[in-house]
Amino acid sequence: MLSGRVTGTIVSTRKVDSLIGSKFLEIQLFSNGKETSEYIIAIDTVGAGVGEKVLITTGSGARLALDNANTPTDAVIVGIID
Amino acid sequence: MLSGRVTGTIVSTRKVDSLIGSKFLEIQLFSNGKETSEYIIAIDTVGAGVGEKVLITTGSGARLALDNANTPTDAVIVGIID
Amino acid sequence: MLSGRVTGTIVSTRKVDSLIGSKFLEIQLFSNGKETSEYIIAIDTVGAGVGEKVLITTGSGARLALDNANTPTDAVIVGIID
Amino acid sequence: MLSGRVTGTIVSTRKVDSLIGSKFLEIQLFSNGKETSEYIIAIDTVGAGVGEKVLITTGSGARLALDNANTPTDAVIVGIID
Amino acid sequence: MLSGRVTGTIVSTRKVDSLIGSKFLEIQLFSNGKETSEYIIAIDTVGAGVGEKVLITTGSGARLALDNANTPTDAVIVGIID
Repeated sequence: MLSGRVTGTIVSTRKVDSLIGSKFLEIQLFSNGKETSEYIIAIDTVGAGVGEKVLITTGSGARLALDNANTPTDAVIVGIID
Repeated sequence: MLSGRVTGTIVSTRKVDSLIGSKFLEIQLFSNGKETSEYIIAIDTVGAGVGEKVLITTGSGARLALDNANTPTDAVIVGIID
Repeated sequence: MLSGRVTGTIVSTRKVDSLIGSKFLEIQLFSNGKETSEYIIAIDTVGAGVGEKVLITTGSGARLALDNANTPTDAVIVGIID
Repeated sequence: MLSGRVTGTIVSTRKVDSLIGSKFLEIQLFSNGKETSEYIIAIDTVGAGVGEKVLITTGSGARLALDNANTPTDAVIVGIID
Repeated sequence: MLSGRVTGTIVSTRKVDSLIGSKFLEIQLFSNGKETSEYIIAIDTVGAGVGEKVLITTGSGARLALDNANTPTDAVIVGIID
């Protein structure tokens, strides 16, 4: 799993139907609690906002955090880090 | 998930039957909204064209965006970024 | 599979319900028995503590080490290295 | 998905039974149509030969291109690039 | 798939029950037949020994090479390279 800070929102009006209603956030990844130059885009499930530090699950495990486990994504924000 | 700009088309006449009809696009990946030197090839589902900025899902989640979830791919364009 | 040394704990009070009760540890990855600058966050299953050297499974295989194979994670500590 | 040029064959006499009959090719990966220093080994499904430019699917999607979707592989050549 | 040379054994007395009996080997990865500085840990299925060059499958495909496809691993040695 990865940690990082939310830096912005990705807006996509024209997208596959199964992603309608999903909120896409861009996240600057952390390593050992420090900022890196890596970024990832993930679907939010916990109401994360820009500036918050979050915990991210990638791959097939990410979808298990969503109401619809068939959502075509590979990364989901699963928690806010205290 | 990844973002990037479509840079071209990959044409493959001789391919596995289950990929017949799929449109393969090459995409220059972005990080934090800026161009990187990384590229990926993905199947298009949203009618993306060269020059458009797109949202990409990789891995097993990519196939969930296709009509046939058994398509042998690992990356699909799931949205056009506004 | 990966090896590394546990360096700390990640605390997330606000998280998806299916991760309540999971213990998240940050691990400095090793390569050929030596420390690298790479870190990963994994769920603990073997009672690992800070400073211990551990064995980690990533991806869908990680979930198979948990009581609930539908836990939305992508990395699990599956053993303590002697 | 990835593109690259086939550079050689990997021969393994002693292997798991479910890989008997599979042809393993080593491929130099391309990025934006240019050679990189990265290589991958994939099972061939389209009769690719050394020197040909190919399209590769990785991960669980790779297996969907094979007659036996339970073949223990993570990369399959799914097309010859024109 | 990956190739590499077995460099040692990883011993873990305290581990998840489903990994009891598995043999973990550390492997120095090869690229284009030459040594790299990358290492991976994989479960052995073919009786590989230190110094032997091996073929490795990663991800969910790795588990398909094992008698128990629910083994919590992400990398398995599937062949000895001639």
